[in-house]
Amino acid sequence: MVDSRFFSSIGSVYLRDIASLTGASITMASGARGDENRPFTNVAPLDRAQEHDISFLDNVKYIDMFATSQAGACFIRPKYKERAPAGMILLVTEDPYYAYALTTQHFYPEPKVEAGISPLASIAKTAVIGKGVRVDAGAVIGENVTIGDSSWIGANTVLAPSVKIGSHTRIGALCTLSHTIVGNRVVIHRGVHIGQDGFGFAPSPKGILKVPQMGRVLIGNDVEIGSGTCIDRGAGPDTTIGDFTKIDNLVQIGHNVQIGKYVIIVAQCGISGSTQIDDGVQIGGQVGVAGHLKIGAGAKLAARSGLMHDVPAGETYGGAPAIPAKEWRRQMVAIGKLGKKKELLDE
Amino acid sequence: MVDSRFFSSIGSVYLRDIASLTGASITMASGARGDENRPFTNVAPLDRAQEHDISFLDNVKYIDMFATSQAGACFIRPKYKERAPAGMILLVTEDPYYAYALTTQHFYPEPKVEAGISPLASIAKTAVIGKGVRVDAGAVIGENVTIGDSSWIGANTVLAPSVKIGSHTRIGALCTLSHTIVGNRVVIHRGVHIGQDGFGFAPSPKGILKVPQMGRVLIGNDVEIGSGTCIDRGAGPDTTIGDFTKIDNLVQIGHNVQIGKYVIIVAQCGISGSTQIDDGVQIGGQVGVAGHLKIGAGAKLAARSGLMHDVPAGETYGGAPAIPAKEWRRQMVAIGKLGKKKELLDE
Amino acid sequence: MVDSRFFSSIGSVYLRDIASLTGASITMASGARGDENRPFTNVAPLDRAQEHDISFLDNVKYIDMFATSQAGACFIRPKYKERAPAGMILLVTEDPYYAYALTTQHFYPEPKVEAGISPLASIAKTAVIGKGVRVDAGAVIGENVTIGDSSWIGANTVLAPSVKIGSHTRIGALCTLSHTIVGNRVVIHRGVHIGQDGFGFAPSPKGILKVPQMGRVLIGNDVEIGSGTCIDRGAGPDTTIGDFTKIDNLVQIGHNVQIGKYVIIVAQCGISGSTQIDDGVQIGGQVGVAGHLKIGAGAKLAARSGLMHDVPAGETYGGAPAIPAKEWRRQMVAIGKLGKKKELLDE
Repeated sequence: MVDSRFFSSIGSVYLRDIASLTGASITMASGARGDENRPFTNVAPLDRAQEHDISFLDNVKYIDMFATSQAGACFIRPKYKERAPAGMILLVTEDPYYAYALTTQHFYPEPKVEAGISPLASIAKTAVIGKGVRVDAGAVIGENVTIGDSSWIGANTVLAPSVKIGSHTRIGALCTLSHTIVGNRVVIHRGVHIGQDGFGFAPSPKGILKVPQMGRVLIGNDVEIGSGTCIDRGAGPDTTIGDFTKIDNLVQIGHNVQIGKYVIIVAQCGISGSTQIDDGVQIGGQVGVAGHLKIGAGAKLAARSGLMHDVPAGETYGGAPAIPAKEWRRQMVAIGKLGKKKELLDE
Repeated sequence: MVDSRFFSSIGSVYLRDIASLTGASITMASGARGDENRPFTNVAPLDRAQEHDISFLDNVKYIDMFATSQAGACFIRPKYKERAPAGMILLVTEDPYYAYALTTQHFYPEPKVEAGISPLASIAKTAVIGKGVRVDAGAVIGENVTIGDSSWIGANTVLAPSVKIGSHTRIGALCTLSHTIVGNRVVIHRGVHIGQDGFGFAPSPKGILKVPQMGRVLIGNDVEIGSGTCIDRGAGPDTTIGDFTKIDNLVQIGHNVQIGKYVIIVAQCGISGSTQIDDGVQIGGQVGVAGHLKIGAGAKLAARSGLMHDVPAGETYGGAPAIPAKEWRRQMVAIGKLGKKKELLDE
Repeated sequence: MVDSRFFSSIGSVYLRDIASLTGASITMASGARGDENRPFTNVAPLDRAQEHDISFLDNVKYIDMFATSQAGACFIRPKYKERAPAGMILLVTEDPYYAYALTTQHFYPEPKVEAGISPLASIAKTAVIGKGVRVDAGAVIGENVTIGDSSWIGANTVLAPSVKIGSHTRIGALCTLSHTIVGNRVVIHRGVHIGQDGFGFAPSPKGILKVPQMGRVLIGNDVEIGSGTCIDRGAGPDTTIGDFTKIDNLVQIGHNVQIGKYVIIVAQCGISGSTQIDDGVQIGGQVGVAGHLKIGAGAKLAARSGLMHDVPAGETYGGAPAIPAKEWRRQMVAIGKLGKKKELLDE
């Protein structure tokens, strides 16, 4: 299942330790007690799991796959117990995906960063490098850059002068950062560009004038940023990303955007300049958000929404232009029926 | 026409050789036989082609340009013969674009890869490099990487440990690959990122937990992948791309996505996690596909579709949310008329 | 306000010099004359500006912020004078954003490029490097490349053989250019890929044939291109970008696209092959444009438009498929009311 060329396992684990790690209770489809002393050696998806593998059922779409799975044990919600195949040990929990993630982390702990500065990296004399830092080949670390303890700068990545990186932060290969201050335990994947000029041009009868971008990018702690994503620095205010926020691949974040904590932004979204996104907002893939808007805490935007107005806290919006999701769904139904109205199609 | 600083031609070619290469028949607008012994020296678009150039007419939009073209010879479908200018030799075929591509390949054969490892590349001692391989300056080849014969790794590209590359494969500059196995004769353009973590987070009352991504990316033979595209590795299953599949620039492929053979995906599409795309599917630009869907063999999605449900094999869908194309076109007509309905605009 | 670690100021400037630079007139909310000899030390946004800072009000959305701002002076349009707080010096102009940009450029002049070829760059012997050029670590400059005077090639950027760069042009880190000729005073941000093969495949019963891409990319003077943007080279004709055109991040430009002068293209747009965009066109974010279209001079496309037909000069279009903006707005109103029509929702 897991390819040992790419991932290192800790080996065998007793089921009782998995139960204690995740809080799941051990039972059998038959109602009998499951054997908590059975050893397991791996995690695997339902259709590939075997006797010594632990799997999970989270999306009900896969219930048939669950019913015929060979997995030795499986995290499930209580309500699906009846569908379990005979002989499978059930790890019953209200949060099977979370429990599976914890278990996988247990089997495959993230390898420690091996400290060391590659002789092929270029490090400015004034850069301040913490303890246990790893800098890979071809990386270019500019003047007055600070890198905190145990952080890892990937191959051929470029940190422009005065950039500040916290501790236990990982920056993938082929990134560029300038005018940026990054917190601790942040993960920046490969090919991310942070701190370039925002798209600021003042058109006038005299021509298009470039507006100098005098702000920074401030990234909190425990943030994750996906490959190919671009985050422009502020024009005067800063562009900010709050703690625990997760941004997927190929996302565009414009200048002065303020993103709160625990925000989730899925791939290929574009957030225009000066928009404010409050804590806990969730934004589906390929959404476009106009500039100077405010999205209240906990709001959700459906994938491919095109947002042109503020969203109140806690609301779910969808469509383009985006409107409250209930209204949007009603519109979709109405439009679906429209196509069948003869009087609208004939002339 | 073709800039000789960038491209090398084989020189002059007789028309009879072009006819034999492409299966086109040689004729004149007048119905007379064309001179099969005439030499040609280049290919060129209709509006720039001259006496010794071969051009083509594929899109009827350019029929007027064809009618006044100075091209010495031109690939066309039989039905457009009447519009040909006097003196032009017609290369008649049912597939003019295909014939033109073959002809261009003949005039400008892809240069052979010049073997050689740049002294400025960083190659791990345990890497296994085939015969005739080229590795450019600044490339970083990790431990246990395998590169097949005659492959080319571009400048500043990073191959993480244990990545496996087939033979006759070209990887452009500034790419990163990890947890990935690539087939033969694959072309990966510049700035492509393959094998990073999928966007897997398990939200729960206890916080957002990162789900370890334990799968790989498996890329078949004869695949082409455009610049800036990101392909996440599987979460447990692998992310797979079948033989002969062509992916354009800035495409996002999520974890566990399974793409069949001969699939075409145009620029800026996003395919969400665990979706299955069967052989021969064609997806237009900027399409978004939700997760856990199945798109049947030979299905087509119009540009900018937003797909939220499965598509049966052979069907064409469009719109967002995407529906069968016929229905979608009817809706578009109905909506177009709506905007003129006075009773809907007044209140 | 402005972080002096990242930006260097010229220091203190008298208000009379700002007035003379921008053509703004100096007055007070009270109607009294403002003190033209007052020195200022910085620019700042309305909510952070203090006594010695100059700010601006351009978007009326921020009028309340203006009314309570502590800024010592502020560029505003004449009509907002009444809302100014007591004591604030008003710099009255019809173009406050433009004046602010000029002022910021005055305080923070772009640092001169420090000439020098990094010993860690790889420069082919046949490359021709002008005077005062800077090439950073890890850059790879191919055979027969030409770089004009005072240009700057960023770290780890790759210029393929025969690429030509004008003078006073800045190419950020981690870019690749091939088959490309770039003008003077161009800014190419980080992670930009220019000149790769266009997405040209001729499908036929015999398989998918790659169409050799024999054109170039020609980039005029004073162009700016955002991070992560991809510009494919022409298939036979060239892909061209006219003078003073500004392209934002993560934009996809297909082969043979012809873009005029003073065009603005916002982030994440995709322009399909062979489309022609005339002078002064403005395209909002995430727009998709089909291939072989013509967008006339001065036309505008609203954000997220999906363009499938030509646009006449001077027109504004919106929606997907895009239609004239007036018609589109009427449709939006009609659709909004549709969702409330009981007879369409019930059946």
